[in-house]
Amino acid sequence: MSLCVQKYGGTSVENPTRIQAVADRIAERRRAGDDLIVVVSAMGDMTDYLIGLAKGVTAKPPRRELDMLLTAGERITMALLAMALERRGVSAISFTGSQSGILTDDSHTKARIRDIRAFRIREELDRGRVVIVAGFQGVSPQKEITTLGRGGSDTTAVALAIAFGAPECEIYTDVDGVFTADPRACPRARRLPEVPYDMMLELANMGAAVLHGRSVELAMKYNTVIHVRSSFNENAGTRVGPASEGRSPREETLLRAIAAEGQVCRVVVRGMPPDPAATAALFRRFEQAEITLNLVEQESAGTPLRFVIAPSDETIVAAAVESLRGEFPGLDADFERDLASVSIVGATLVNRSGLLADGLASLAR
Amino acid sequence: MSLCVQKYGGTSVENPTRIQAVADRIAERRRAGDDLIVVVSAMGDMTDYLIGLAKGVTAKPPRRELDMLLTAGERITMALLAMALERRGVSAISFTGSQSGILTDDSHTKARIRDIRAFRIREELDRGRVVIVAGFQGVSPQKEITTLGRGGSDTTAVALAIAFGAPECEIYTDVDGVFTADPRACPRARRLPEVPYDMMLELANMGAAVLHGRSVELAMKYNTVIHVRSSFNENAGTRVGPASEGRSPREETLLRAIAAEGQVCRVVVRGMPPDPAATAALFRRFEQAEITLNLVEQESAGTPLRFVIAPSDETIVAAAVESLRGEFPGLDADFERDLASVSIVGATLVNRSGLLADGLASLAR
Repeated sequence: MSLCVQKYGGTSVENPTRIQAVADRIAERRRAGDDLIVVVSAMGDMTDYLIGLAKGVTAKPPRRELDMLLTAGERITMALLAMALERRGVSAISFTGSQSGILTDDSHTKARIRDIRAFRIREELDRGRVVIVAGFQGVSPQKEITTLGRGGSDTTAVALAIAFGAPECEIYTDVDGVFTADPRACPRARRLPEVPYDMMLELANMGAAVLHGRSVELAMKYNTVIHVRSSFNENAGTRVGPASEGRSPREETLLRAIAAEGQVCRVVVRGMPPDPAATAALFRRFEQAEITLNLVEQESAGTPLRFVIAPSDETIVAAAVESLRGEFPGLDADFERDLASVSIVGATLVNRSGLLADGLASLAR
Repeated sequence: MSLCVQKYGGTSVENPTRIQAVADRIAERRRAGDDLIVVVSAMGDMTDYLIGLAKGVTAKPPRRELDMLLTAGERITMALLAMALERRGVSAISFTGSQSGILTDDSHTKARIRDIRAFRIREELDRGRVVIVAGFQGVSPQKEITTLGRGGSDTTAVALAIAFGAPECEIYTDVDGVFTADPRACPRARRLPEVPYDMMLELANMGAAVLHGRSVELAMKYNTVIHVRSSFNENAGTRVGPASEGRSPREETLLRAIAAEGQVCRVVVRGMPPDPAATAALFRRFEQAEITLNLVEQESAGTPLRFVIAPSDETIVAAAVESLRGEFPGLDADFERDLASVSIVGATLVNRSGLLADGLASLAR
């Protein structure tokens, strides 16, 4: 008997039928004797629906109220899953982020977990219950409801696995694991049975949506294995963990994959003064706003700075550039929209420029 | 400047457009200088939608999880209303039942308010904010989320008006107040500008859905006036309060109204032993289950007991009768379904059998 932490994403619980299927899977595991903590996301497109309602009343929802609104999503899923388990004779209880003891800072819509005081979860596990936890949400020191940002449910699950000393965390999704490319776009993509943390981090940051970067960082820090599997079948999935030590360099080079991002925005900041302090000041603003920059290039101080961002970050980047114009007059940003990015990720690729040639030739075709 | 407690029901906030209209009304009141506590229900048919999801996973949802599920409804409304107010430059904050300090017993799906510790509401009012409170919900001593049962948001609003010493509580709905009959069924129905508590209680219990009985009971106990108004216009509405003392008996008899219930179930319990203890035991069961009985008749001990219930209470009544069969063998219940009830409510009507004759003649036509 061991403790198992599982997480089910939105497509895995998108309607009552799917919730029943997930309940069957959990019930079987429970009957086999495992203790279970199950983290859930909002159902299918519930989050989009709620955001749509918010857009119906204001273009700029206050972040505190946005958190209040969106956390209704997981609450619905977790109650339904608990009901489905009880119907199967499996004793279960659902907990909000606050009831689960997920304590965060007070940074609404992108809070960081500060501590986990999971005494209520432990109590219910000891009573033999399956504990269902709302992913994505926590509570601040001021007892305010917070959310962890996009992909936050993965982070909730990994954090709970760490808090309870579980050796691995199972993340259930709608694909069979991590692939060499998006299997929906590329039918010849192969599943990778194992992926080292650092490669998974790169893939996540370059657009592979299967796991969120922050959950991988957290798992890497505490050496917790993330087991990515499909909730629609019994296939083996992908284990994300430490790089295998006995592996030869030849094997390492075989570990590579392609990640793509369908919509990115390329930024060119012109009028950079010949002073590295300007670049540093810009980057500090971006970090405060928690913006992910990719493919950063600057030939030298004083030449234009180029990078790639998510389209949703465009207004923040524009504001950051604007705010520095007092200090660095002439600073200006151009945004090139409707671009896609394709990345090849893998160890020791820097030595294999032939791969880059193959990739460019494919793109040219 | 005074403190005003308002409650907006489901149809008043059924979509973003309606929420905007309600926000306009609140903003105007705030600008006039009033402090405001605003209690909201779930949007339109959100509660039915959530119950439908629950039915999709189980026929008998555990009551604790049903509370968890349904409380997502008000959370959505309150966040959206706070956003709409902020957009209008009115500082606002939304609170769950728990954050509002609505402490209840632990009776899920029909909890009773035990205490209100509204220090967070008071703090935010002092900061000049409009405080939006989730109706219908509270928190038990075990920090479990509870709900107050059907019509619970009215009760939340009246309880807050009492806790804050507001002389009246405004209940906004989709009709212009309390009418002599349902204006949708009877175009000649007249609005009653004032209705005494006891008459309102009768009307509520006989099917007038405009206010829930428990909120009227509570208001009567603390002498708080309930002002029923439409959120769709500026009409005067109906004030529900103590009976006016200076009124002549002639005026009292003019205060009468018709309430109808479209679907009721008539129960006949046969095999009653000639022992009033059997009737008493049955009634005790019904009270425990919080079932409302109407039109109770029993000629004498030992003859069949007849009464009218809501169709949704049928299984509970059947189980109660069943459970007493060990003690009183031969007990059995018949259910006559698809009936409607029509009631004439008013003071001193018992002396006016001519009214009953008129009513029966109308029904015969």
